[in-house]
Amino acid sequence: MDIHQKEPREDADWRVYVLRLNHRRERDKRITTHCALVGRAFGALGMYYSGDQDEGLETAIKNVRINWGGAFSVQHVRNPVSFIKDWKKSGGSVVHLTMYGLPITKISELFQSTDRHKELLVMIGASKVPIGYYRLADYNLAIGHQPHSEVAALAVFLDRVFKGSELENEFENAKLRIIPQEAGKKLLRK
Amino acid sequence: MDIHQKEPREDADWRVYVLRLNHRRERDKRITTHCALVGRAFGALGMYYSGDQDEGLETAIKNVRINWGGAFSVQHVRNPVSFIKDWKKSGGSVVHLTMYGLPITKISELFQSTDRHKELLVMIGASKVPIGYYRLADYNLAIGHQPHSEVAALAVFLDRVFKGSELENEFENAKLRIIPQEAGKKLLRK
Repeated sequence: MDIHQKEPREDADWRVYVLRLNHRRERDKRITTHCALVGRAFGALGMYYSGDQDEGLETAIKNVRINWGGAFSVQHVRNPVSFIKDWKKSGGSVVHLTMYGLPITKISELFQSTDRHKELLVMIGASKVPIGYYRLADYNLAIGHQPHSEVAALAVFLDRVFKGSELENEFENAKLRIIPQEAGKKLLRK
Repeated sequence: MDIHQKEPREDADWRVYVLRLNHRRERDKRITTHCALVGRAFGALGMYYSGDQDEGLETAIKNVRINWGGAFSVQHVRNPVSFIKDWKKSGGSVVHLTMYGLPITKISELFQSTDRHKELLVMIGASKVPIGYYRLADYNLAIGHQPHSEVAALAVFLDRVFKGSELENEFENAKLRIIPQEAGKKLLRK
């Protein structure tokens, strides 16, 4: 299955995908799941991941899609370096989120650029990311220069890309929908 | 040890602390650590947590503080309900981040309010949060109404509170400091 959707969504200027590097099945199980959920909730179209293939992860995200709608899915890539090179060859851009990179304010350069950049791969590491990836990326961007979390970095990055509008995203074919409450839980089932 | 710093930081309008509910030592180890790191990096002053007491977590954050500076630390609370009640009695506000809550845009109400709200406790759940906490909170706020991650919710919430300025935070007594690079890693050690 190729999760790459060829038809652009009409409502999005940016078509963003996540690439999670070097997933370790046991150690990263929950963090990688959070990365995928954040990707989906904050407007990315899908997540690729390298490292251990993990059916549990793929199934968890599939179940979220079944219940909460949309088309977001997760796909394993065997060779992330050639994957990134192919992405760039076909005209897409690559951003690597790292505390060592340039401040996120530099994102404006990315935003000012042309169509070449409308298809965006956002790379986030699990373990230490080899220096080669820094060189492959078009931009190494830091969400602050303190140690924190790739989950948070991804969320804040996508929030900057979509300027907060992502928090109002609605997903097609959702079985579950929340009715916001001041102090309680209200979940509609279709 | 009480991590609550009585002296206000001069540079912050908001004094924010995190309360992580019901930490489970094995299952939540990494996610709770990410919550603490995000709290620190995004401008909170400390994190309280209930559930299993976890020396590994406390030591991990202590080591980050030793290397990266600042005064952020983590403290276990035995009874979160009385802790929250005491917080409110002493004039502080409590925000609970939950996908079931009102949209984060409602945060403006919180921001418009007076000194009563300058000391803020941000609650985030690990497992399912009992309904009583929704009633205890002054505000139940949703960072979108899709399932994602408390790590991301905390980051985006603090980013809204501090309006992006938190990403330029510098920490006192840091041994390590990053010099941002276009494509590489540069770490200064003092």
